[in-house]
Amino acid sequence: MTYCVGLMLEKGLVLMSDTRTNSGVDNISVFRKMFTWSVPGERIITLVTAGNLATTQAVISRLEERTKAPSERSNSLMELPTMFQVASETGKLLRETIRETQESNGVRGKGRFTASIILAGQIRGMEPRLFMVYPEGNFIEASYDTPFFQIGETKYGRPILIRGYDRDMSFEDAVKLLMVSFDSTLKANLSVGLPLDLMVIDRDGFAPAHERRIEATDPYFSAISDGWGRELRSAFHSLPSYTFESEDAAE
Amino acid sequence: MTYCVGLMLEKGLVLMSDTRTNSGVDNISVFRKMFTWSVPGERIITLVTAGNLATTQAVISRLEERTKAPSERSNSLMELPTMFQVASETGKLLRETIRETQESNGVRGKGRFTASIILAGQIRGMEPRLFMVYPEGNFIEASYDTPFFQIGETKYGRPILIRGYDRDMSFEDAVKLLMVSFDSTLKANLSVGLPLDLMVIDRDGFAPAHERRIEATDPYFSAISDGWGRELRSAFHSLPSYTFESEDAAE
Repeated sequence: MTYCVGLMLEKGLVLMSDTRTNSGVDNISVFRKMFTWSVPGERIITLVTAGNLATTQAVISRLEERTKAPSERSNSLMELPTMFQVASETGKLLRETIRETQESNGVRGKGRFTASIILAGQIRGMEPRLFMVYPEGNFIEASYDTPFFQIGETKYGRPILIRGYDRDMSFEDAVKLLMVSFDSTLKANLSVGLPLDLMVIDRDGFAPAHERRIEATDPYFSAISDGWGRELRSAFHSLPSYTFESEDAAE
Repeated sequence: MTYCVGLMLEKGLVLMSDTRTNSGVDNISVFRKMFTWSVPGERIITLVTAGNLATTQAVISRLEERTKAPSERSNSLMELPTMFQVASETGKLLRETIRETQESNGVRGKGRFTASIILAGQIRGMEPRLFMVYPEGNFIEASYDTPFFQIGETKYGRPILIRGYDRDMSFEDAVKLLMVSFDSTLKANLSVGLPLDLMVIDRDGFAPAHERRIEATDPYFSAISDGWGRELRSAFHSLPSYTFESEDAAE
């Protein structure tokens, strides 16, 4: 499994991904699921991936090759004129990669080789944009109404995102929120694991504003994880008590 | 979908279930998913169900019939000598009901007609017990290590249960905890809905200690739902702030 989130804020974009991959619970590895391309001063693009690892690695390698082979330069992440076109190209590569593997294996319909991608970035002269790319190659874009996307094991970490997210929050608060969301997920699903990768893209920065790997020994992550349990229990005790004379309980 | 939880406490057992059933998002109804049988002073048994509604209603009707038809009295919930045997009979009925519907429809393997059940209760002279019954008819029992079971849409409401549960908590706190867990689930999954059913079984009471339907207009539930958002945000702000000079962030 996997857990990745992309948040759109007034100030820019924040992405976090875990790094655990597994093929059965007895075969666990660490693989990076976050990839960034940038032309400093002109564009920055970050992808996070969930799903079949061979599929997502193939998509990333193909995107990467295009930035290097001169003949394919026109389709490259470095050259495409808009984030919409970047999302289209990524979706097309994702769909083709899945279809090729399925066809070689005689798999029909929604198969084992599926994957999805959150794509974030900004190109000079345009707004920062955040997309969710589906295995079918199509995609949706974040908006004021739906300002963040999650892929992989999305449910455990969702309630705190729904309650804590605020479009005007600082990058620091957004990172803290993501750490709480990841901590809830890590506590519930063994197939999501540390270390985590973090990328902060500030509006009109066109370079990583802050980029980090959060290891299992990270003192801030431990402080959040321990503190959140304590704060949750104290929040719980601050709520009004239930009484068995229930009709009057809220008075 | 559905959300049901059964908690085992030092003081007894607490169960909560939602009441929404749906066949597509355009066909939503309210059905009770919590059923109780008791012989006052001798035994009390409560079931909560998730899964195919026709299956669970058939299982409940068959259990109910057995308590009435004299010839089948020996297998009845009212007569079986131990909670273990109640769980065995319930599991057998569940497996047979699923298999019959699958066979009549030519469905093989894990089919659409599946369901699962949380079973709680106490019979005089024995401890209160809590079981999770699988569609295969087998079952597991709660223990000190795993003192609660969830069925249906379990993930959204799990982090707060993991963090807030305490075996020695009062019934009132347990109900409050369940309301928070249900509120997080209701906020994230439209197919889980109010009203909720609540049953509190106290140790050696052999009758419902507290039983209630929590309607959408319930003032205590509204107070919990509003208060929890506020308290969560305040808990979040109490955590140490992240800083971009990250290595020192926890100092």
